[in-house]
Amino acid sequence: MVIVMAPGASAHEIDALVSVVERAGGTASVSRGVSRTIIGLVGDIERFETLGLLGKPGVADVLRVSVPYKLVSRENHPARSVVRVAGVPIGPGTMTLIAGPCAVETPRQTLAAARMAQQAGASLLRGGAYKPRTSPYAFQGLGEDGLRILADVRETTGMPVVTEVVSAHDVSLVTEYADMLQVGTRNMQNFALLQAVGDCGKPVMLKRGMNATIEEWLMAAEYIAQRGNLDIVLCERGIRTFETATRNTLDVSAVPVAQGLTHLPVIIDPSHSGGQRELVLPLSRAAMAADADGLIIDVHPTPEEALCDGPQALVADDLAELGRAVREFPPLLGRHLTAGASLVA
Amino acid sequence: MVIVMAPGASAHEIDALVSVVERAGGTASVSRGVSRTIIGLVGDIERFETLGLLGKPGVADVLRVSVPYKLVSRENHPARSVVRVAGVPIGPGTMTLIAGPCAVETPRQTLAAARMAQQAGASLLRGGAYKPRTSPYAFQGLGEDGLRILADVRETTGMPVVTEVVSAHDVSLVTEYADMLQVGTRNMQNFALLQAVGDCGKPVMLKRGMNATIEEWLMAAEYIAQRGNLDIVLCERGIRTFETATRNTLDVSAVPVAQGLTHLPVIIDPSHSGGQRELVLPLSRAAMAADADGLIIDVHPTPEEALCDGPQALVADDLAELGRAVREFPPLLGRHLTAGASLVA
Amino acid sequence: MVIVMAPGASAHEIDALVSVVERAGGTASVSRGVSRTIIGLVGDIERFETLGLLGKPGVADVLRVSVPYKLVSRENHPARSVVRVAGVPIGPGTMTLIAGPCAVETPRQTLAAARMAQQAGASLLRGGAYKPRTSPYAFQGLGEDGLRILADVRETTGMPVVTEVVSAHDVSLVTEYADMLQVGTRNMQNFALLQAVGDCGKPVMLKRGMNATIEEWLMAAEYIAQRGNLDIVLCERGIRTFETATRNTLDVSAVPVAQGLTHLPVIIDPSHSGGQRELVLPLSRAAMAADADGLIIDVHPTPEEALCDGPQALVADDLAELGRAVREFPPLLGRHLTAGASLVA
Amino acid sequence: MVIVMAPGASAHEIDALVSVVERAGGTASVSRGVSRTIIGLVGDIERFETLGLLGKPGVADVLRVSVPYKLVSRENHPARSVVRVAGVPIGPGTMTLIAGPCAVETPRQTLAAARMAQQAGASLLRGGAYKPRTSPYAFQGLGEDGLRILADVRETTGMPVVTEVVSAHDVSLVTEYADMLQVGTRNMQNFALLQAVGDCGKPVMLKRGMNATIEEWLMAAEYIAQRGNLDIVLCERGIRTFETATRNTLDVSAVPVAQGLTHLPVIIDPSHSGGQRELVLPLSRAAMAADADGLIIDVHPTPEEALCDGPQALVADDLAELGRAVREFPPLLGRHLTAGASLVA
Repeated sequence: MVIVMAPGASAHEIDALVSVVERAGGTASVSRGVSRTIIGLVGDIERFETLGLLGKPGVADVLRVSVPYKLVSRENHPARSVVRVAGVPIGPGTMTLIAGPCAVETPRQTLAAARMAQQAGASLLRGGAYKPRTSPYAFQGLGEDGLRILADVRETTGMPVVTEVVSAHDVSLVTEYADMLQVGTRNMQNFALLQAVGDCGKPVMLKRGMNATIEEWLMAAEYIAQRGNLDIVLCERGIRTFETATRNTLDVSAVPVAQGLTHLPVIIDPSHSGGQRELVLPLSRAAMAADADGLIIDVHPTPEEALCDGPQALVADDLAELGRAVREFPPLLGRHLTAGASLVA
Repeated sequence: MVIVMAPGASAHEIDALVSVVERAGGTASVSRGVSRTIIGLVGDIERFETLGLLGKPGVADVLRVSVPYKLVSRENHPARSVVRVAGVPIGPGTMTLIAGPCAVETPRQTLAAARMAQQAGASLLRGGAYKPRTSPYAFQGLGEDGLRILADVRETTGMPVVTEVVSAHDVSLVTEYADMLQVGTRNMQNFALLQAVGDCGKPVMLKRGMNATIEEWLMAAEYIAQRGNLDIVLCERGIRTFETATRNTLDVSAVPVAQGLTHLPVIIDPSHSGGQRELVLPLSRAAMAADADGLIIDVHPTPEEALCDGPQALVADDLAELGRAVREFPPLLGRHLTAGASLVA
Repeated sequence: MVIVMAPGASAHEIDALVSVVERAGGTASVSRGVSRTIIGLVGDIERFETLGLLGKPGVADVLRVSVPYKLVSRENHPARSVVRVAGVPIGPGTMTLIAGPCAVETPRQTLAAARMAQQAGASLLRGGAYKPRTSPYAFQGLGEDGLRILADVRETTGMPVVTEVVSAHDVSLVTEYADMLQVGTRNMQNFALLQAVGDCGKPVMLKRGMNATIEEWLMAAEYIAQRGNLDIVLCERGIRTFETATRNTLDVSAVPVAQGLTHLPVIIDPSHSGGQRELVLPLSRAAMAADADGLIIDVHPTPEEALCDGPQALVADDLAELGRAVREFPPLLGRHLTAGASLVA
Repeated sequence: MVIVMAPGASAHEIDALVSVVERAGGTASVSRGVSRTIIGLVGDIERFETLGLLGKPGVADVLRVSVPYKLVSRENHPARSVVRVAGVPIGPGTMTLIAGPCAVETPRQTLAAARMAQQAGASLLRGGAYKPRTSPYAFQGLGEDGLRILADVRETTGMPVVTEVVSAHDVSLVTEYADMLQVGTRNMQNFALLQAVGDCGKPVMLKRGMNATIEEWLMAAEYIAQRGNLDIVLCERGIRTFETATRNTLDVSAVPVAQGLTHLPVIIDPSHSGGQRELVLPLSRAAMAADADGLIIDVHPTPEEALCDGPQALVADDLAELGRAVREFPPLLGRHLTAGASLVA
C-alpha cells in the first residue's frame, strides 16, 4: 500500500501518518521527493484499511495495487498520461518525433542535425553530451560544453532538448540545461541515478535495459515515481537475443504490453534497435503502427564522420520519407504528429 | 557455385556436366528434384569459370553467389518473387491475409472460422490437421479426416488451403489435399521434411525456428530450393528470448532484413508470436507497416472451446478492426490487400 | 493418468480397458510400442481412481503424476535408472565416456579415432554416418557406408556404437547397425522421429534442443517413452544465448536440475557446447563435478582434415589429460569410470 | 596504444608526453588515477612507435595490444595475476572461498553466518550493507550501520570483508570499512561507479552483467584498470537466457574463456546463478573443476527469515559437504584451499 501526500503536506502530517501505521503494527518508508512525498507501507493491509488513511491531513491518495509497480501502474490510474516536455506533449492522441545527433560534436553539426530533425517533423531535439561507452578509450561526449551547444541550438531552433545523464553526480548540472533527462539502457537499474532524476523536477525518458523484462522496466520507473516525479516516458530500444543480423532485436510487442500495464507513454528508438540506417524507416513505421506514443531517431549531417553510431544515423536523403511516414501513419490510429516550433523560429 | 539444369535436362547431360567438373578437380553433388535438377559444385571456383558451364547442353543457369544460401539469395535474383497459391499471389505489390483455425476440429467449426476469415479479408484458409505438440498426450490433430474437412470447406468457400505437415512420411498425403504446405517452427531444421516438401510440387510456407538466426532460416529454405522448388514463403513467428510477458518475441526487423537478403516473400504470424488475442491487432499493423508480404492469423468461432491455442485466436468482434487495418495500411506502402474468393462463392 | 501394460498384454485386454475408461466418461489414447503398450487417459481422474485399473488383466502399472512428463518423471520413479548399451551401463554409480569422430569419414580415420577414444577411457564409440547440416551443400555423412564402417570398427575394438539418426525413414536401417541411436539437437522436437526411435528396440540418446527448456526436453523424452522405450539417456549440449565467445553456452545446471526431475541418466557433450578444443577439458571436468552420468566427446586423428567440426575435436596430445580427469573426478562423487572393452580386444 | 606512467610521474612529464603525441598527429586521453596515470593514445600507431615513448621520463610501460581491453588483457600480461584482499590471495595456485550472508541484517545474524562460513573453509566474509533491489519498496540494506556490523564481525573473526557498493557517491564511505568492494551485476556498466572504485585504492570484485558478453565484462574491468587499479577479481554469476528452471544460467565456460583473455582472477557465484539451495553444491563443484580461482557463496543461519535471497542460502547442514568439496577438488587442478584466519581467532 502506498500513500501519496499532497504537494504541500507538512513534516508534522507525515510524521503523524507514520505513527498511525506503526501503531497498527506496520512499517512506513518515507520517500521525500522534490514535489511530493510518497510513503510505502508494509504490513497487514486489511488492518491498514481500517485506519481511514485517505481522510488524514495532507493525504492526497492511498493506493492499494496488486502489481509490484504501484505509482506507474495502469491498474491504479486507468487513463493514459500525457507528459509535457517544455510544453510539447508525449502521450495518447499525438505521435511525437524526437530526433537529433547521437552525440553532440560541434555547434555546426548539432545545428545542422536539428534542422534535419525539424524538416522531418521533429518537435524535440535529442543529442548526447555524456555518452556511456563500452570502452574507456572511446569518445565520452563533450560534457558541459555539449550541454551549452544544445542550449544554443534550442535558442536558434525553438526545439526543447532531451539529453542523457549517466551519473547521479551530473544530474543537477544536466537539469540546468535540459528539458528532459534521458536514462540510458545500461543505467536502467542504476538505482542512485533513478532516484536522482526522480528528484530533478524535469521529465525523464527511461530506456529499457537491453536485457530487462517489461516488469523490471516498470519497476525502474517506479523508482523515479517514488521520488514524486511521474513525468516519465518509457523508451523501448531493442533487447539482446541470439540474432546477430541486427544489433539488438526491437521488441515491438513491448508497446502494447507496456501500454496495458502502465499509464506512462511508451516510445520507440528504431536507430539503436537495429543499428543500421536501412532499418530505421521500416522499424519507425512498425512502431507507429503498434501505436507507440513517439519515436526517437538519430540523424547526422555527415554520418561517416560521426564520433558515435554513424552507421545508424539517417541522412538528408531519408528525411522526406520519414517526414511522410510520421504524417501518414498516426492518423490511422487516431493520432496526429506533434507540431514542433516553426521552422522559421 | 551452383548449376541449375533446365526442366527437361536429360540424365546424360547431367552426367556429362559432372564429368567435366570432376576432371577439373571438383566434386559435384547432384540433387534431382521433381521439377528441376540442381548441381552443387565444390572446388576451385576460378577453375570452374573457365569451363564454359553456362553454354553446356541442359544448363539453365550457373550461379556464383558469395552467401551460403544461393538459390534463395537476392544477390543472385534481385527482383523480389511472387509465390502463387492456387492463383492467389503472395509477394510485392500485395498484402495477403491467411486466416483460419489453429486446428481443424469439426466441419462446422472450420467452416465458421473460414467465413470469419473471409469477412476480415482473407484470401487463403489456414487450418491444422497435423499438430506438432510438445506433449504426446495433447491433441495431435485429426489427420486425414482434418484434411478432408479442409478440402470440403475450400469447396464451399473457394479459399485455397494452407496446412502443416509434420513428417516427411505424410508429405504425399498432405500434398493431395493442400494448396500450400506449411513447415512449422519446430521442424525448420528437419532436413528430411524440407527435402520432401522440396519435391512435393506445391508451394511451401517455412516458419522460422523460434531459435533460428535469419541466416539459418534462409539455409533451411535453400534445402527446399535445392530440390527444385522455389515457391517458398518465409514466415516470422516470434523468437525465444528472456521476456516472459509474451509467448515469444516478434522479431519485426526480420521482415526488412530477410527481404534484403532473399527474393522470397516474407510474412508474419502475429498470433503465435504474442500468444494473446490483445496483441494480434497491434502486431498485425506493425507487420504491415514493416512491409510484410502477408499475415497468417488464428481465428476461431468459440476460442474458449478450442483444442489448441484458443487464447490467441481472434473472435468475431475483432474482425471488423482487422478488416479495416488490412485495407488501410497496405496502400501506405504501395500495396493492396489480395482479393479473395467472393463471399457468396 | 497413464496405464502401462505388461509386455505380453493382449489386444483384448487393452480393448477391455479402453471400454472401462470410456464408460467412465474418459478418453483413452493407446500407444502400441514394440515392447509395451501405454494408454494415456484424459478425463475425471477422481472417477478413474474408483475403477480398480491396477487390478485389471494385463495392467503392469497405473501412474498418476502431476507433471506433464509422466513415464520419465522421477516423481513416479524415484530411483535413478541405469541404461545399458550392449551391456555398457550409463547411470548412477558410473561415469561413462563416449568418444569418437564427429563424422565417419574413412575406415582408417574411424579406427584411429576409436583407438584414441579407448586410450582415454571410452567404453562406447560415437560416430556420425548421417549428419544434419545447416547447409544442403555441406557434407551430409556417408550414410549406410558409414554405418558399415562403424560396425567393422566395433568388431575390431569391441566398442558398442552410438550413432545419430536424422529421419524417421532411416530408423530401421540405423537400428540394424547401431547399439544406441542418437537424436540430435535440431531434431529434439521432430515428433515423428521420436516416435520411430521409441519403437526401435534400442537405447536412445536424446540431445537437448539448443533452444529447449528442460521441461520441453523431458516432454520430448516422454514421446519416446510413450512408445514403450524407457532406455533413454539425456544429453545436454549447450543452449543458444547472446554470448558469442563460445558456440553455445553449456548449461551445466541442467545436470542437477534434470536429475531431480527425471530418473533417466543425464550426460554432457562438452565438444559441441563450446565448439573449441581448449574448452573440452575444463567443461568435461565441470560436467563430472556436476555429477553427470557420462560424457560424449569428439576425437579425431587429424582434425585439420576433418569434414565436420574439426576445431572442437581432441587430438592425441589431449588424451592423457582427459584420461586422467575421467579417472580422478568420478570417485569424488562416488562414481567410477565405466570399464570398456580391453584395449587388446 | 596505452602509456602506463610510473607511480611518481610528475604533471610535467605527463604534459610533455601529451605534447609529443599531439605533435605526431595523435590525441591523448589522460586518466589520472590515485596510484597511477594512464594515457590512452588514438592515432597512427606506426608513427607513435617511432617516438621512443618507452624511454621518456616517467613512463613505466607502453602497451600495444590488439584487443580493446588493454590493461587487463593477457596478451600484454601473460602471467595470471594474484589479487590480495587484506593479505588473502585470490588467483592461480589457490582456491579462495568467500562466504557470508546476502544481506547484513543484525550483528548476531552476521556473526553466525561468518562462523558458518569459516567452518566451511571461507577466508573472506561477504555481506551486503547496500542492496540493489529491483523494487524501491524492497529492503535496501542497512547502509553504514551494516558496514559497522561487518567491521565488528571482522574484528571478532579475523575475516576480511567484501561488500557491495551501489553508487559512486558511497565509494569513499564503503572504502573506509571494506577490504574489497564489489560492483554488482546491474552496475557492471555504471561507468561512474567503475571509475570511482578504480580510484578507491582497494581491490574490486566485478560481477558480470547478467546480459553482458565476456568482452563487455573485460571492457568494464578496463574502466577500473584505467584509473590505475589493477586489483580486480572477475565474478561470473549467471546470465539471462530463456530457461526458467533456474534463476539465471551459470556460464561455466566463462571461467576458461575469461582466463584465456585476461590475467585477472575469475571466480564464480553459484548462489545467485541458480537461485536454489540444491544447486549451490553441484555448481560449486563444477566451478572448481572448471579451474575457477574462487567461489562466493550465500550462507544464512536462518534463511527462512532472510530479508534477501533466503531460498539460495546454504544452511548449517550443507556446510560439511561444502567443506569437503572445497578441500577435495582444488588439489586435482594443482590448487589448494586458501587458508583463512584461525577459527579460534
